[in-house]
Amino acid sequence: MEKLAVLGCGVVGSGVVELFEKNKALIQKRCGKKVEMGYILDLRDFPDRPYADKLVKDIQVILNDPDVTVVAECMGGIDPAFDFVKSCLEAGKSVATSNKELVAARGDILLKKAKEHNCNFFFEASVGGAIPIIRPLHKCLAANEFSAIAGILNGTTNFILNKMIKENMDFAAALALAQEKGYADKDPTADVEGFDACRKICILSSLAFGKHVYPESVYTKGIRDVELRDTKICGLLGYAIKLIARVQKLENGKILPAVMPMAVEEDNLLSQVNGVYNAVMVRGDGIGKAMFYGRGAGKFPTASAVLGDMIEELQLDHTIPSQTWENVHDNDFIENFASFSAKYYFRTSSTDIAVLNEVFGQIGEQIICTDDGETVFLTENPLNERELDAAVKALAQKGVQVLAQYPILES
Amino acid sequence: MEKLAVLGCGVVGSGVVELFEKNKALIQKRCGKKVEMGYILDLRDFPDRPYADKLVKDIQVILNDPDVTVVAECMGGIDPAFDFVKSCLEAGKSVATSNKELVAARGDILLKKAKEHNCNFFFEASVGGAIPIIRPLHKCLAANEFSAIAGILNGTTNFILNKMIKENMDFAAALALAQEKGYADKDPTADVEGFDACRKICILSSLAFGKHVYPESVYTKGIRDVELRDTKICGLLGYAIKLIARVQKLENGKILPAVMPMAVEEDNLLSQVNGVYNAVMVRGDGIGKAMFYGRGAGKFPTASAVLGDMIEELQLDHTIPSQTWENVHDNDFIENFASFSAKYYFRTSSTDIAVLNEVFGQIGEQIICTDDGETVFLTENPLNERELDAAVKALAQKGVQVLAQYPILES
Repeated sequence: MEKLAVLGCGVVGSGVVELFEKNKALIQKRCGKKVEMGYILDLRDFPDRPYADKLVKDIQVILNDPDVTVVAECMGGIDPAFDFVKSCLEAGKSVATSNKELVAARGDILLKKAKEHNCNFFFEASVGGAIPIIRPLHKCLAANEFSAIAGILNGTTNFILNKMIKENMDFAAALALAQEKGYADKDPTADVEGFDACRKICILSSLAFGKHVYPESVYTKGIRDVELRDTKICGLLGYAIKLIARVQKLENGKILPAVMPMAVEEDNLLSQVNGVYNAVMVRGDGIGKAMFYGRGAGKFPTASAVLGDMIEELQLDHTIPSQTWENVHDNDFIENFASFSAKYYFRTSSTDIAVLNEVFGQIGEQIICTDDGETVFLTENPLNERELDAAVKALAQKGVQVLAQYPILES
Repeated sequence: MEKLAVLGCGVVGSGVVELFEKNKALIQKRCGKKVEMGYILDLRDFPDRPYADKLVKDIQVILNDPDVTVVAECMGGIDPAFDFVKSCLEAGKSVATSNKELVAARGDILLKKAKEHNCNFFFEASVGGAIPIIRPLHKCLAANEFSAIAGILNGTTNFILNKMIKENMDFAAALALAQEKGYADKDPTADVEGFDACRKICILSSLAFGKHVYPESVYTKGIRDVELRDTKICGLLGYAIKLIARVQKLENGKILPAVMPMAVEEDNLLSQVNGVYNAVMVRGDGIGKAMFYGRGAGKFPTASAVLGDMIEELQLDHTIPSQTWENVHDNDFIENFASFSAKYYFRTSSTDIAVLNEVFGQIGEQIICTDDGETVFLTENPLNERELDAAVKALAQKGVQVLAQYPILES
């Protein structure tokens, strides 16, 4: 009988084991074959768990058992996850991972390894938790040339922004609540600074456009500076400030990935994604646009995605050509962020409309004067980074400060 | 070189040919092999089309060519589509169809045929047009026991309801506009009466719960009686009336599929699905809930789904165990609609609250009196069909008419 193995018995790993045991009969039916949980690798002991007899501490036990055909990697981090996954693939055992750090940093190497050994490196769980997005992108939508992807890919920051928007909490209070509820780590840097969302848009960009996009090549700005005042005013204007991870294909053939807080119009479903939920909007020449929505994290949602990969692998006997991307040594296909262009929301320290008109042209109907010496407005035309810089400098020369600025997500 | 064939050169069929030719290089790369468009079957001539040389009128040409491995069925209807698809499968050629009528009526037979001949009968395009939902259900979410599915699966009726809700058009005017725009047929029965949505929920129910659900076993009510007055009042209460196709698994193990207009709370993303878009919300024990959103129809969106199936087949050399369901001869697994239970929106011909309280218990805070002799309220507790009937009769005995009633979609 074929056996599964799980590396790492933390939240996700134990979820994989428990969900598998719960729905074993159903899963076997859907696979079309008998399969059992063979091993769970962890250096810790869990003597009270029902699956304690399956715990092993040495990866060799798994590598040496020919009945193990599919392995889940739920350890997180690069080391030793990378070496373990590589060894599994070299032994012809397919791997399903929930580890976005690993995929974003070394996906190209592991995908190549999988192809060489006629097995698969799956990573549905690495982006959007429970949301099916990886398989839809490279299978269901495989006939499309993609033009853009934009998503809310980090539940923690979405929870924080949501509390600011809906319950008037400021950033610090909302972060403290997220930590209290276990949605944010003690050190919330990876979430709050956008690094986690960045890894995920790297994975989606790599898959959609066929070349490995490294996190270092992606402009990334987090939500630490988002002020309650702007979430409120944006709301009045019919926008929600969301941490958006996005990539677009430009007319010159290059792609432009970025992560930053953006103002999202209320007609756009992404603006309605609340709490710890995630969503991904995809544009392609066949489909127009499609959106995928669900729980971005959590024990069983993530385990569901890992097991979905394992179940597919149990039905396969070969590597999947569409699920891969190239390992590239230069970044020529990535456009510099200086070319990023969008309409903007501005809040400035002046109510002198003449000055604002001078710098931005007629700001006209888009203007909203607030009552304490500030002006809020939306630009009528898109600005690129150079134009944005020039405008900010021109205002400064006239003694006007830009207090807040958010690009508006294209609809 | 492997060849594709397309049966039917109507809107969807020609879309498959055109999208394939447009993105051929990309598609070949994703398939990992060379492939070309071999034949297009149609009884009509299209001498001016660039692919005129590929048109054939005899299905035998396709059946007899061993290079044809994957066939798209875009003819619609049962006859001769069923015979043609069956013949292809018997010849070991996999089929991808956009024909929901065929899948809902004969899916069980064709899936069995595909398994017997180690090929596949794909139908991603039959539900939700461009939206990836079939493959996510049986692959990505294969580790889940499903508890409920609810969707907006018919773009025509969603367009009509949307015009009523947002633009104050009445049903007749909105239908006429839908016909003018080509969203509704001259004879709009299949859309307006819910039959089209019914076929789609049959397909989703069959796949999610493993047994063929025939349209005849599904309670189906269309939108012809929806009044502008109720779409307006519902809006004020924070609900949108939508044609919902849904199925739930009950505690007794049976499933309860149904299609009907329901009031959807504005916090539910389904209420925000506008125009001709479709969306499907899925609940499972692993994922919690997930939603899939996109264009429900149209030439290229549907072609994208058909080609996605064809591209997967080109990467496969065997049948997929998870994509199937049983052919069953009784309907014991389907609960009678009499057991359906929901909270309700009511509009009645009386402002005598005492009478309403007598029949429904305290309707209390949920009440909204309108100014011309009617009362609108939401029930605090769910009612099943028997309780609903009893309440309507009790009101009638007191001289009060129920002018409108809508079940509220469970959140």
